[in-house]
Amino acid sequence: MKRSNSEDATGADLDKKTIGLLESIAKRVRASIDSGSLPNLELPVRSLDNVKYEEAKGYFELGNARKVRTLTVNTARAFAQTLRLMATSRAMVEHDDFATKREVYYISKNWGDCRFDEQAESDAIMDDIEAMASMYGLSREQLRFYPESHGGSVAGRLTVVDRNPATGEAIEIDCANLGSGAYSIPRSVEHLSFRTDARFVLAIETGGMFQRLNNHRFWETARCIIVEMAGVPTRATRRFIRLLSDKQQLPVYCFVDCDPYGFANIYRTLKVGSGNAAQINRFLCVAQARFLGVTPQDIIDFGLEDATHPLAATDIKRAQDALHNDPFIKAHPEWVTAIKQLLQMGVRAEQQALAKWGLNYVIDEYLPQKLANESSFLP
Amino acid sequence: MKRSNSEDATGADLDKKTIGLLESIAKRVRASIDSGSLPNLELPVRSLDNVKYEEAKGYFELGNARKVRTLTVNTARAFAQTLRLMATSRAMVEHDDFATKREVYYISKNWGDCRFDEQAESDAIMDDIEAMASMYGLSREQLRFYPESHGGSVAGRLTVVDRNPATGEAIEIDCANLGSGAYSIPRSVEHLSFRTDARFVLAIETGGMFQRLNNHRFWETARCIIVEMAGVPTRATRRFIRLLSDKQQLPVYCFVDCDPYGFANIYRTLKVGSGNAAQINRFLCVAQARFLGVTPQDIIDFGLEDATHPLAATDIKRAQDALHNDPFIKAHPEWVTAIKQLLQMGVRAEQQALAKWGLNYVIDEYLPQKLANESSFLP
Repeated sequence: MKRSNSEDATGADLDKKTIGLLESIAKRVRASIDSGSLPNLELPVRSLDNVKYEEAKGYFELGNARKVRTLTVNTARAFAQTLRLMATSRAMVEHDDFATKREVYYISKNWGDCRFDEQAESDAIMDDIEAMASMYGLSREQLRFYPESHGGSVAGRLTVVDRNPATGEAIEIDCANLGSGAYSIPRSVEHLSFRTDARFVLAIETGGMFQRLNNHRFWETARCIIVEMAGVPTRATRRFIRLLSDKQQLPVYCFVDCDPYGFANIYRTLKVGSGNAAQINRFLCVAQARFLGVTPQDIIDFGLEDATHPLAATDIKRAQDALHNDPFIKAHPEWVTAIKQLLQMGVRAEQQALAKWGLNYVIDEYLPQKLANESSFLP
Repeated sequence: MKRSNSEDATGADLDKKTIGLLESIAKRVRASIDSGSLPNLELPVRSLDNVKYEEAKGYFELGNARKVRTLTVNTARAFAQTLRLMATSRAMVEHDDFATKREVYYISKNWGDCRFDEQAESDAIMDDIEAMASMYGLSREQLRFYPESHGGSVAGRLTVVDRNPATGEAIEIDCANLGSGAYSIPRSVEHLSFRTDARFVLAIETGGMFQRLNNHRFWETARCIIVEMAGVPTRATRRFIRLLSDKQQLPVYCFVDCDPYGFANIYRTLKVGSGNAAQINRFLCVAQARFLGVTPQDIIDFGLEDATHPLAATDIKRAQDALHNDPFIKAHPEWVTAIKQLLQMGVRAEQQALAKWGLNYVIDEYLPQKLANESSFLP
């Protein structure tokens, strides 16, 4: 096992940058107090008014509006909590540790009067700090605040290079050698690097389909990496796919159900993120992702009509919302056409509906046919 | 890599037994038809009336009541569906394939008049076949019907021996060498074998706690295997822990939140299963599991009083239900006492509440103290 120097350097650089940012803010607060003026913290406004869709970048981003949290009688508690959370972050970077959102809430139980009464309070302040750090290119994971949820499962032509946290030694995980099991993506992936000879990443909606492609080693012949999203992908899954695609210059193809939830929630979250959490999109969005299927046209082309389900009222509402209110959908005529086609057909189809033609039709026919015509993928 | 013969033999034996069972039933049906009498299928009754708690075995089990599905005009469709599903199972065993519940539903779309209209129909018939097979010691996974959900994450002193489905070659996965990631348990684990020098298995409720123990390599010094349950454990997680514990004679300790859901849902499901699915308990229950914590007494012993939450009405109802209606709880005075203590204290505590004393208090203090006194674990 040999130490992966370039990665360590990147990690150490980011840690230095994180501590530098936290210290510079703390110093400004301290200087205000020393000079007898009320200290303040400048934080990006996180409401939807301050979110814009950047078509060139391909995702929602925070605008320039700022709110200023000045120390007053009313803000004393939130002000102190913000500083204590920043100090917690600094200590975690220094000790190479981390805390989940829930743990952050509990840590405060020893903070006396500025303890958090509910996790909603600590989450809001964590979001403020995250938004501030994002302005400097630092993510919440770099502040060492980790999400509760791990990422999806991974298998295929990929070696993940991690490190032993105790010794710093490189640890190599061969995702082609996990049998019917898979690699479970950790909560933070910033420190990982990759080696691969894959041609693309296939992001899959359902666990059942992932297991099928993995058990039949689809990734071996198709020369790819398969990732299970298990519905709307978690932060860790999104960041993992993003880093993998960026670092290895791999295209990302999405294989999800043919329904408005698959288009406007699962695929859209992976690709362009959401307006509600615009501070994180620049780290998590996979702007290079494309939609392999299942498309409305696939229902016709692959004879799935009698394996469909009627669109429910919620499906129709979600589709109409996407057509009228979603800047991403509206920016892409191909998506407008596809969603209108689905509404006109009045049905939805799951990726597992392909089993109608036999369990492995998806491996023997559907995916090879689709992959032979990448230009037909939806944007 | 060398082929693991003993495991292959076991797998092949079970496959032979599965095909033997399916054929013997089919032959009886055929013989009835040939002799001019109406064929029938004898299936265990799956209602709660036919479930008993076996204290010696430590889990709920199906009783002896049987229902007979005779071929009539009214039952023709269900009868045909049962036989077709059995044929599907046979074909999957022969081709070393599998189907999720959802895929089974879709496969039927080519069955003409006996196609399933809804998945509830195919699930019910699958449960019937499963119950029938369970009488002969065969699980649903051996019939090759797999659950949608994969199992939890695993890390620690364990080598999982799987096989390459194409070549049969053994594949060894070293769960001590996955960095901050983990091994994701596949949907079926029947074909796995294990090598380990661990002293015990620690089954953990939350992903956040799992990540903490994994990142700090708790399993290295504590000489154990850690498994993330992520709430109520899935079938795959339960079967994995059961096989691991049985084959390697390892004790299983559970580390979950101190609340009625943690006791009566998460822990109880792992240990004794549920009455609603008694046909599967004999394969999935981990009767040897014991409850490490968090116990109501731990709240006092580890000074967590100010990191608790008041019991909600649903918590109190669940606790009362457990005390009055749950045969497992009623059979164990230690549990009755613990639940009464919790009700009297009026609060619940999460495992992450230990972070009040510092993020790694759980590693440095709590777990070592508990593990030094295994006899205090709840049954």
